[in-house]
Amino acid sequence: MKFIIERSQLIKSITIVQKAIASRTTLPVLTGILIETADESLILTGTDLELGIRTKVPATIYQEGRVVINARIFGDIIRKLPGDEVEITIEDNYHVNIVSDFSNFTIVGSAADDYPQLPTLESFQSFSIQTDLLKNMVRQTIFATANDETRPILTGELLEVEDGELSMVALDAYRLAYKHAIVDTQDKIKVVIPSKTLQEVVKILGDDGEPVLIQASSHHVRFELEDTEVISRVLDGQFLNYKDIIQSDHRLRVKVNTRLFRDSIERASLLARESRNNLVKLDISDKGMWIRSTSELGHVEECLPIELEGDDLLIAFSTKYLLDGLKAIDQDEIYMHFVSNVNPGIIRPVNDDWYTYLVLPVRIAD
Amino acid sequence: MKFIIERSQLIKSITIVQKAIASRTTLPVLTGILIETADESLILTGTDLELGIRTKVPATIYQEGRVVINARIFGDIIRKLPGDEVEITIEDNYHVNIVSDFSNFTIVGSAADDYPQLPTLESFQSFSIQTDLLKNMVRQTIFATANDETRPILTGELLEVEDGELSMVALDAYRLAYKHAIVDTQDKIKVVIPSKTLQEVVKILGDDGEPVLIQASSHHVRFELEDTEVISRVLDGQFLNYKDIIQSDHRLRVKVNTRLFRDSIERASLLARESRNNLVKLDISDKGMWIRSTSELGHVEECLPIELEGDDLLIAFSTKYLLDGLKAIDQDEIYMHFVSNVNPGIIRPVNDDWYTYLVLPVRIAD
Repeated sequence: MKFIIERSQLIKSITIVQKAIASRTTLPVLTGILIETADESLILTGTDLELGIRTKVPATIYQEGRVVINARIFGDIIRKLPGDEVEITIEDNYHVNIVSDFSNFTIVGSAADDYPQLPTLESFQSFSIQTDLLKNMVRQTIFATANDETRPILTGELLEVEDGELSMVALDAYRLAYKHAIVDTQDKIKVVIPSKTLQEVVKILGDDGEPVLIQASSHHVRFELEDTEVISRVLDGQFLNYKDIIQSDHRLRVKVNTRLFRDSIERASLLARESRNNLVKLDISDKGMWIRSTSELGHVEECLPIELEGDDLLIAFSTKYLLDGLKAIDQDEIYMHFVSNVNPGIIRPVNDDWYTYLVLPVRIAD
Repeated sequence: MKFIIERSQLIKSITIVQKAIASRTTLPVLTGILIETADESLILTGTDLELGIRTKVPATIYQEGRVVINARIFGDIIRKLPGDEVEITIEDNYHVNIVSDFSNFTIVGSAADDYPQLPTLESFQSFSIQTDLLKNMVRQTIFATANDETRPILTGELLEVEDGELSMVALDAYRLAYKHAIVDTQDKIKVVIPSKTLQEVVKILGDDGEPVLIQASSHHVRFELEDTEVISRVLDGQFLNYKDIIQSDHRLRVKVNTRLFRDSIERASLLARESRNNLVKLDISDKGMWIRSTSELGHVEECLPIELEGDDLLIAFSTKYLLDGLKAIDQDEIYMHFVSNVNPGIIRPVNDDWYTYLVLPVRIAD
């Protein structure tokens, strides 16, 4: 195996496939990148068995072959080499000789035969979506996935396509984030994607608005973008019926400036001790919204101007869960919908029905 | 106690004094900032008993007083407040009321009487130095101080003034960094300053080249810059006689490009496993300098052009200690002076006798 490749392009490809490589693994071969020659190009593959990334990069191939190289050391070396081009030759016993300008490295590789194959999707459904729309949908929802593994299905995010509408939903025991959009397909999809997969896909997506092809089978999801494909297993189990959770009726509706409200809740959150959440109470009336918080450190109160439709209400939330949703909203103003101080609050941008954030209140003594 | 202050100025002052406040301390009062009113200004003080910082900031004083406020919570609140001005009033039981625009915080402060007084210097010697020169001297030497406390004196840096010359020296068991400069004083100073003190002083110093006044007594050192003063205890004990360590004779001298050499050593360092140093061998002859490194991960060799005066030499160094010195040098070319492969190597910028870096070699089998 022997090839010459442009160093900057190789760095880009290594950076992409490294996203699938776990920093800790009990299987040594998974610390490596699989490198294979193809027609005037290299194929690089990285996987942690749950998530796999494969990318193609142009190269001048002098001799075909395959090898596995430790991802960290390979990436570090290629990034630091002095020349614009790199010549790589696999010698006996998988010794990888790397030459660039006056620098000459030899590192120990291993056989490609032990490297796990990425799964292939059978009988899949599919659709295409613009990269920037997909990135935005993930950004506005992914933070609401559960961190703990007590209910593994909640560590993933629901991706559902039905009647030409794409829904992405993440939720844990305290809140739910829901974003939907129109997509051009009649295919029907319902999969729960591990949040790590979506995080890595978003990092790989460029900003140039090109389309991503997404394919889903009952066990896997595949993202195809230009020269790169990401294949991930999906989570088993039944996702909660989010449509039942998001009730449409409300007894009051509050319109407030997003930034003013977010900054105010951020200040209230300062009174929490390290790693502890604190409560914020919203005292809503037609005079305005009083925001109050108290802890052993002290207390704060602020009053924001609002437009209120409906009754007065005193309701309490965790500052963290409220803030997460407010940070995901780009629009200047939001509506908050409430039924009572024991029903969830529902937050939507004004003039945008595509995003919904639902957050459970904390019960307070009267 | 009551005053009104510009928020941006208060933030700047809090940021300065916070540098003296330890994140963990067994003495609760040390987590606080002492705030005192003075003539049309506030005095803010922070200390960890080893290092103390005091700064003055203009304010409109309505009622005099003193109070101690938790530094973290006070800083966080002031940084996030909505208005340009802040009105602070101390109420009963040291409750600190903070009002800015529509935001109204009350946090729990404590009595100023328990706050430790910063030491005053008696019978000190002093000199002035430009901020940028002092910053550079610290940057080029401080990394060579010892991290471990087995010999506490080596965790500090020697500051010596004699015959109008300032020397700053840091060393541990493996290397020594020495920078000197001319200063306009006939005073005589010899103190060892904790490296943390110098790190914090450098962060406080601006880039505007104004002079800093440095005063030293046998127990303390004091830095005075505009509205801020930093007072630190100095380390007890005898510093090694650095002049004896830096020998002037050599049997060979190598001239090499600083950046090429540094990049080459950085590549050699990639072959070290996490948290372990590796060796680099320099094989010096009139054909060039071969740089070679080997570990269980692989090996590298590179050859750099040099100008050699003297004999051939094969000598080995820890990549880390060599790199630390090379990173401190801004000039394009360096001289390396060697006596043998068991004597320290001495590195100096070409055309600059003000900086010396000395590094011990690692013995290698022949």
